[in-house]
Amino acid sequence: MTEQKENEIRFEVSGFLANGISSGIKKDKSKDLALIYSETPAKISAVFTQNRVKAAPVLVSMDRVKKKVAKAVIINSGNANACTGKEGVSDAHKMANIAAKNLNIDDKLVFVASTGIIGKRLPEDRITQNIPRLIEGLSPFGIPSAAEAILTTDTYTKIAFCKEKIGEKEVSICGIAKGSGMIMPNMATMLAFILTDAAIQTNALEEIFKEGIEGSFNSISIDGQTSTNDMAMILANGRADNPIITRYSQGIGRFREMVFDILLRLAKMIVKDGEGATKFVEIRVINAREYKEAKKVAFCVANSNLVKTAFWGEDCNWGRIISAIGATGVYIAADRINIWFEDALVVKDGVGTGKEQEERAQRTMKKNEFTIEIDLNNGSSKARVFTTDLSHEYININANYRT
Amino acid sequence: MTEQKENEIRFEVSGFLANGISSGIKKDKSKDLALIYSETPAKISAVFTQNRVKAAPVLVSMDRVKKKVAKAVIINSGNANACTGKEGVSDAHKMANIAAKNLNIDDKLVFVASTGIIGKRLPEDRITQNIPRLIEGLSPFGIPSAAEAILTTDTYTKIAFCKEKIGEKEVSICGIAKGSGMIMPNMATMLAFILTDAAIQTNALEEIFKEGIEGSFNSISIDGQTSTNDMAMILANGRADNPIITRYSQGIGRFREMVFDILLRLAKMIVKDGEGATKFVEIRVINAREYKEAKKVAFCVANSNLVKTAFWGEDCNWGRIISAIGATGVYIAADRINIWFEDALVVKDGVGTGKEQEERAQRTMKKNEFTIEIDLNNGSSKARVFTTDLSHEYININANYRT
Repeated sequence: MTEQKENEIRFEVSGFLANGISSGIKKDKSKDLALIYSETPAKISAVFTQNRVKAAPVLVSMDRVKKKVAKAVIINSGNANACTGKEGVSDAHKMANIAAKNLNIDDKLVFVASTGIIGKRLPEDRITQNIPRLIEGLSPFGIPSAAEAILTTDTYTKIAFCKEKIGEKEVSICGIAKGSGMIMPNMATMLAFILTDAAIQTNALEEIFKEGIEGSFNSISIDGQTSTNDMAMILANGRADNPIITRYSQGIGRFREMVFDILLRLAKMIVKDGEGATKFVEIRVINAREYKEAKKVAFCVANSNLVKTAFWGEDCNWGRIISAIGATGVYIAADRINIWFEDALVVKDGVGTGKEQEERAQRTMKKNEFTIEIDLNNGSSKARVFTTDLSHEYININANYRT
Repeated sequence: MTEQKENEIRFEVSGFLANGISSGIKKDKSKDLALIYSETPAKISAVFTQNRVKAAPVLVSMDRVKKKVAKAVIINSGNANACTGKEGVSDAHKMANIAAKNLNIDDKLVFVASTGIIGKRLPEDRITQNIPRLIEGLSPFGIPSAAEAILTTDTYTKIAFCKEKIGEKEVSICGIAKGSGMIMPNMATMLAFILTDAAIQTNALEEIFKEGIEGSFNSISIDGQTSTNDMAMILANGRADNPIITRYSQGIGRFREMVFDILLRLAKMIVKDGEGATKFVEIRVINAREYKEAKKVAFCVANSNLVKTAFWGEDCNWGRIISAIGATGVYIAADRINIWFEDALVVKDGVGTGKEQEERAQRTMKKNEFTIEIDLNNGSSKARVFTTDLSHEYININANYRT
């Protein structure tokens, strides 16, 4: 384990301990139970799925976040504890409760998250039996093992870290996330836990976090689905001893940039690891009447199966893009739309520009990552979303997920 | 040709002639130009795509339908004449105009439709050169050849026919349609032409047609996309000499049933021939607060890639269905939802009912056609939509459509 610790040391955030173990929820014995623990009470801000069907851990955590203080988060993968009725809620409470008892803290300060298959009761005894071992292994270097334990069909762990001086003090932020299936606007199946030792006022923390979420996790799409289990939270325990950041203090600009950077890096990792994804595409909509419309258009294009299969086929089928734009319901003037595939202008004033530009676009599409810019020429607002292609592999993964 | 006529005779509607030929728009020399002609002026009702980007023929036909009279419809496949600017509109006009001249009728009575690739100019000279030959071949038995000429990636022609007595007179209705890709609510890439010899008042015809469309073409979904080119129209030329059908006449009930039957049969054919489709699934939502909500929920389930891949994998993954229901934005009480896979009740009050019912559902899913019923227990409205699975084949077709 010593070598591993050497590698992982950069993911340390003062006052935070973490661990991830296998408790036997997943059949393949990979890690499935994670714990994050803050030695001092941390301020917390969180966002939750907007799906009307909310998993039990979401209901429990939504209730607890009202007090805006956290000491620990316990997370399991392999089972979503969703559509499990009252028993499911009681299971989620129990999971937090046993963790709290073993940590010797108030159980209202323990948050719960789950991800995995919907509709099966949690194997509660496996979890409770393994909590003491989970706590025993808590370590300042344990963030990567927690990051591993929250994964489902993800193919790699997602960790982002930064450390910078705010005033005289070094402040660290480390985020872990899981994504892969069902990624969409409004917090679709996705878990993210951001840990920072910054000292910050709760309202400033909330403002920054929610703004950051809008431009990151709420701007990605893999398959247009929203899940029952999403949540993202930030915990700030103040252990960096920086002068407390307020809405009006000098440090807030720098801290905001750090949080945005972590969130965006994690969001991009999630898209790149989307189920079956082979392309990473940024859809940029500019000169819309308002931000909401720009975002709606970007998402309509990003979520179109026809557009996504064309990405996979490396086919510059801009007709599908323009058709998706027209189908959003947003007012647009078809004869003012320009579409760029990076430096290739394939549509000018709503009409195709011909073979030369298309061939240039086709070359762009051979890359693993590229950007499409849609100019609505209708105003001055813009938005961007990140998406992927739709491949055979997506279908393979999802046709047989449960078997 | 004599044998063919024998087979096709049942598709005859008094006073209508039709033909379909190859004009060279499609590279593979299959039929791509169709003409429908009514010997006497016909009353017409039509619905068009709600995509804000409308193809040139849609713009032209939308304008002409205001007068509610038609004598002919000219349709090409292989090229959508969409996103082709002013030139495209002029091409569509020209196509109608040449047909009108050769038919020796007022060109305002000629309607135009196109389907195929977006963004390329129509090969106008191929069309104009072939119009005389197209007209020459017009025949009372030509409906099947017109039906063939409007296809794109469809794998078979779609024709529905019925003939019944209304009062003393026999009334015939024959409909042809094309679908396959981009099928979705609100008239997505789909063409349908319904011909009847019934004598009927225009307002009665419109009322019946629009109601019929809502329950048929606007209740099907293959990939959640809406196209730039959809249109469906009904032409009634009165040649059956039945007592004219009004909103209040006795015959209207029978005629309504006939139209609904034709529309539903065509809509189902389109779904069954959806790109890469291997399953035909009816999603029924019952006990919703209102019809609109029921339909929204049904469509959200029908359009979910995760649900559709599970259909393909024959996996009774009801968690994805309930997750899709929750994500619609419609108010639902999660703990009152029941979900049936035909006779298997897999979710009761929002909670899974266990292995036995799931196994029964799994057996249902092995069939090529099955029904899922979602009981929201929230009101008394209902809706149904027809959809397919999402298979590898869908991606194969769409990744390389243009090449």
